[in-house]
Amino acid sequence: MTDSPASPAPVLEQADRTLDDALARLFAFLRIPSISTQPEHAADCRQAAQWLRDELDSLGFDVTLHETPGHPILVAHDRTPPAGPHVLFYGHYDVQPVDPLELWARDPFEPALVTAQDGRRQITARGASDDKGQVMTFIEALRAIRATTGQMPVRISLLIEGEEECGGPSLLPFMETHREELRADVGLICDTAMLPGVPAITTTLRGMVGEEIHLRCASRDLHSGIYGNAARNPAEVLCRVLSSIRDDATGRVTLPGFYAGVQDPPEALRARWREIAPDDAAFLGDVGLSVPAGERGYTAIEQTWCRPSFEINGISGGYTAEGFKTVLPGDAMAKVSFRLVAGQDPVHIRQAFCAHVRDRLPPDCTVTFTPCGGSVASVVPDDTFGLQPALRALGDEWGTPAVTIGCGGSIPVAADMQRILGISALLVGFALDDDRVHSPNEKYDLTSFHKGIRSWIRILHAMGKTDA
Amino acid sequence: MTDSPASPAPVLEQADRTLDDALARLFAFLRIPSISTQPEHAADCRQAAQWLRDELDSLGFDVTLHETPGHPILVAHDRTPPAGPHVLFYGHYDVQPVDPLELWARDPFEPALVTAQDGRRQITARGASDDKGQVMTFIEALRAIRATTGQMPVRISLLIEGEEECGGPSLLPFMETHREELRADVGLICDTAMLPGVPAITTTLRGMVGEEIHLRCASRDLHSGIYGNAARNPAEVLCRVLSSIRDDATGRVTLPGFYAGVQDPPEALRARWREIAPDDAAFLGDVGLSVPAGERGYTAIEQTWCRPSFEINGISGGYTAEGFKTVLPGDAMAKVSFRLVAGQDPVHIRQAFCAHVRDRLPPDCTVTFTPCGGSVASVVPDDTFGLQPALRALGDEWGTPAVTIGCGGSIPVAADMQRILGISALLVGFALDDDRVHSPNEKYDLTSFHKGIRSWIRILHAMGKTDA
Repeated sequence: MTDSPASPAPVLEQADRTLDDALARLFAFLRIPSISTQPEHAADCRQAAQWLRDELDSLGFDVTLHETPGHPILVAHDRTPPAGPHVLFYGHYDVQPVDPLELWARDPFEPALVTAQDGRRQITARGASDDKGQVMTFIEALRAIRATTGQMPVRISLLIEGEEECGGPSLLPFMETHREELRADVGLICDTAMLPGVPAITTTLRGMVGEEIHLRCASRDLHSGIYGNAARNPAEVLCRVLSSIRDDATGRVTLPGFYAGVQDPPEALRARWREIAPDDAAFLGDVGLSVPAGERGYTAIEQTWCRPSFEINGISGGYTAEGFKTVLPGDAMAKVSFRLVAGQDPVHIRQAFCAHVRDRLPPDCTVTFTPCGGSVASVVPDDTFGLQPALRALGDEWGTPAVTIGCGGSIPVAADMQRILGISALLVGFALDDDRVHSPNEKYDLTSFHKGIRSWIRILHAMGKTDA
Repeated sequence: MTDSPASPAPVLEQADRTLDDALARLFAFLRIPSISTQPEHAADCRQAAQWLRDELDSLGFDVTLHETPGHPILVAHDRTPPAGPHVLFYGHYDVQPVDPLELWARDPFEPALVTAQDGRRQITARGASDDKGQVMTFIEALRAIRATTGQMPVRISLLIEGEEECGGPSLLPFMETHREELRADVGLICDTAMLPGVPAITTTLRGMVGEEIHLRCASRDLHSGIYGNAARNPAEVLCRVLSSIRDDATGRVTLPGFYAGVQDPPEALRARWREIAPDDAAFLGDVGLSVPAGERGYTAIEQTWCRPSFEINGISGGYTAEGFKTVLPGDAMAKVSFRLVAGQDPVHIRQAFCAHVRDRLPPDCTVTFTPCGGSVASVVPDDTFGLQPALRALGDEWGTPAVTIGCGGSIPVAADMQRILGISALLVGFALDDDRVHSPNEKYDLTSFHKGIRSWIRILHAMGKTDA
């Protein structure tokens, strides 16, 4: 056992020297099509978990794959931990579905390193950014540390799950039954984004309520000529109901009580955000848009980082294939979600939504609701263990001060860590908003991967030298 | 050559004796999966046309399959026609798609004769009713006549196409270029329904305008967490636009000028309809509904027979497969149609719809329109050649007076015959509203098939004895 060295420079040099090998390992991980929401990929999810187990075992960790009703949960502990602070790293090995497959330029599970038109080198594959690439920044940092100093600067445990992308139910009870084993001084979650060139720790995360609604009118599909006009059309009812959830003029959600308890962030923070993202056009322009579509009076960044919203994630009914079919559908369905901010209760929002739909159903129309997950928003306090050293370490790596930002996405585990384990989590991520996560042609910049590894080396080193 | 006999009784007896053989031939026709809207079934459509060619050739007709840019058009003329009136029979050999396949109790292309819970014997298969079963009532009538008397009572030609179910463009120019060959004294179209036990000739048919609309906002699918609220959601825009086409309180279509020129049928006819269909519940109850959903002040029968309407035939956007995906779709689409009545111009309705959609598009949302066919409504005058003898012949066969009714569906060929060939068409059909045409488990009652054959024998016989 040795003390942590005064400088992380030798470890950073090791990471630089071995980057090609690190990339090859990431590619092997990306080749496993671990789509958690599709039952036919269950074996692939298990294979991804086993692949991680073997990697961490070779890096000196005791690893257990815990069986669940869904996909396995990996827990790893350093076999030779130092004294001092204890960090719990969280990531997930599962990925999103790949449809529509025809929009991918390459096989989503055959990773490649390509050069974009602007010269950026990018790793393309499903999961390249969300979350396999991000998980591997941490694991490759551990490898470089082990190879150089033999000893981690802090006590490290890892919790890596396989149901993040499917709203799976396994993690929550697992954390409750393994509360003692998982307790640490702080959580480290690598599943978020930064602004280009500006390192960031995400301190506010939106929660989410997801729901599938299924409307039925006639007992079967009908001929739209024979029945059209007289038979209630569930697709039309669905359109009417869903378009009533948000007020078109103000962009605000219409559910009673939806904004109760919602507060704006401090003006100083909003000002800092306007400084680092002065222009809606940049955020929206990357995806072909120009005008923030949400609540009037908020920038696009504010609409996504600190304001709740409603989205239709999927809708279908009737005949949608090639050609035209004069059918009057018997049923129609939608998958919808609300993004929540601090102060909103997922249970109340779900109830308000279901009541809103039921109140608007015409005769001869029935509804079935299927909950698809729910989580509260979370906020990381400024005095959280490790936050300030981590911000400084990030600033050192990227050559510009790190900032605290919000994230529109939901990472329920951050709130769960707080509630169940009693620890806050630092959300440190190197993804970019143009990574096309959840979309065709997902990518992760080689810079994100390389400087991500280096950032973790610096953060862990800084945490080992401080009482934070 | 012989004169038509005084009574059709020997021919009717021949049809009764050979019903099993007629059924076997229909089954062979039904086994051909001639789905015209799906390109992979093009060869099946051709096979269905060839099967009809061989049948009609064996019955003494000169048959030609005319090539088109789509599926072949069959024209047949009696090789030994009598003097006197000339009738042109129209039907179609193509069928609707079969999805959702999992809702079929049997293979849609393996016909069966099954006994329903109420004792009715029914032929089940895609196309059993629409339109293969109906076409075969006419062809089997010809067979029984040829076998019994050797001579048709009137001069008979047939026009059978393969693009009725896909709004294909081939028939119209074909009728124009073959105007002289196809001209007759009256058209006979077998593609409509009757009320149970009450024979009917359909004298009003709705027209149709079909349109596919495709909305695009972002240039790709987005993560609904990262972009939700700020990025315009095309599925939400689509819902808003489509739910604005019909006024929820009155059930009326909101497009400007939509009802200009629309008139109610004479009160005497509405009264006769209320007599034969006194109860909305029967018409709607068969499909699990109870309340007419269209314009207030009209019965369900009136809403479908004589009032125009708007329908969403299909809608899709975002993730709709199993599980949940937090996607904010980049695009969404719908297939919609308007059913038109006499006095409405399809071109004007299409223009009004497109303008209505364009006027409601928010920033960052573009629309693409794809026309999916259009046709005017049609009305058959009371003094049309053959109408009164045909009504009497139907009354004789079914033992109850035949009535003139409306049909909510669109049979564009009726209007096209009037416009291009200058002849009216008698719409004589034996389908029932519960035949599940265009739906899973399509069927045709054995009674419809058997008494349909007998009805045509009587109608052709009556037309041969009269100047109509």
